[in-house]
Amino acid sequence: MVVQALLFDVFGTVVDWRTSLIGRFQRLGEENHLTADWAGLVDDWRAEYEPAMASVRSGQRSWTSLEVLHRESLEKLLPRYGLGASAMTDALKAEMVLGWHLLDPWPDAVAGLARLKAKFIIGTLSNGSFRLLTDMAKYAGLGWDAVLCSDLFRRYKPDPAVYLGAAELLDTAPENIMLVAAHNYDLAAARTCGYKTGFVARPKEYGPRQKKDFKAEAAWDVIANDFNDLAARLGA
Amino acid sequence: MVVQALLFDVFGTVVDWRTSLIGRFQRLGEENHLTADWAGLVDDWRAEYEPAMASVRSGQRSWTSLEVLHRESLEKLLPRYGLGASAMTDALKAEMVLGWHLLDPWPDAVAGLARLKAKFIIGTLSNGSFRLLTDMAKYAGLGWDAVLCSDLFRRYKPDPAVYLGAAELLDTAPENIMLVAAHNYDLAAARTCGYKTGFVARPKEYGPRQKKDFKAEAAWDVIANDFNDLAARLGA
Repeated sequence: MVVQALLFDVFGTVVDWRTSLIGRFQRLGEENHLTADWAGLVDDWRAEYEPAMASVRSGQRSWTSLEVLHRESLEKLLPRYGLGASAMTDALKAEMVLGWHLLDPWPDAVAGLARLKAKFIIGTLSNGSFRLLTDMAKYAGLGWDAVLCSDLFRRYKPDPAVYLGAAELLDTAPENIMLVAAHNYDLAAARTCGYKTGFVARPKEYGPRQKKDFKAEAAWDVIANDFNDLAARLGA
Repeated sequence: MVVQALLFDVFGTVVDWRTSLIGRFQRLGEENHLTADWAGLVDDWRAEYEPAMASVRSGQRSWTSLEVLHRESLEKLLPRYGLGASAMTDALKAEMVLGWHLLDPWPDAVAGLARLKAKFIIGTLSNGSFRLLTDMAKYAGLGWDAVLCSDLFRRYKPDPAVYLGAAELLDTAPENIMLVAAHNYDLAAARTCGYKTGFVARPKEYGPRQKKDFKAEAAWDVIANDFNDLAARLGA
């Protein structure tokens, strides 16, 4: 196996979006004298992710970045959580959307990526927007060599155009790239495109709502416990 | 001036392509018992850069990455330097083209960029290819937050699509971005698109053939002696 680049799914695989956002919104609420079921709001916000992207994937609506989808789904959810127009300023809503840029990494992520970076090109391959991923890398200390994402291809994973477009930009064959993800569907799509595959379980990603991806559901090329284990298995 | 991101021209502004390539080809020649006027070859190779891109810019030929243009112009030049098919294997030619990925930074570049990275998003905005710039960053220790380049937009600077496309990916207005370049034409194009502009003179870039860009030819927003001076002027 001659892997030149490791590309990482980001939300859930590299960063713990759920714990990060709940904590951030609790602090934001305290500062602004707002109370709400922040955990419920975060879980519902994430649950809007798939249907929102589906409308773009299907062609029902033209290319719309995840940044815009995040804004739209927040608007939809706030009234349900007692945070209607009277409670929320535009600045507060913008700060909540910005929360998705400023997510904390899983405890093993930064150290594992630093090891892997010494041997491989490391990059993102995320449905997040380019600015979001750039901000996140600075905030969380993720030393990406390359930020590859939906915005560049105007397509969302698991559209093959994303995996194949990344290989074209890296000027190498898909089989020289490994996708690392905590989600079996993403690895399945990457494998169909010729990628190598690495699975890292993140069983706490969705908190009590997690229903899948507790373990590898296919014989992925590498199955690791965390990023340090991944580095060890890849000789980095 | 509220600058969020500094985008850098790369060849000549960040890295000293001429000295790097001459040194690399001299070593390659010695290892392979080849002699040639390596400095002349490097200067002529770079001189092919503008006309090669011009054919793409004009629409005379469809999008072709700089990687391919580099290969083509090398093929054209080798016989003139006594390095015809009998002297050169495909592997040797590939190694010469790869030389453009592995260029040494100017002495102030790495330290200056590290200072600037603490305050701004720092990225490339180069006509180089994505893989070339990714390899170069690892080789030279350039800690880019974002690799932005011709490949992403399938256009070459000074096409406005490159400057405006970068602003779109960074999800900000062009006036919040500063282009840093050693070339007045690049800054002029960036300014037309609304960018802030920073000039750093690199009077040795072209060696004895340098004919222009010895100094700022317009009132750019910042004019600095090198990247450390740039960092100081920008409060980084």
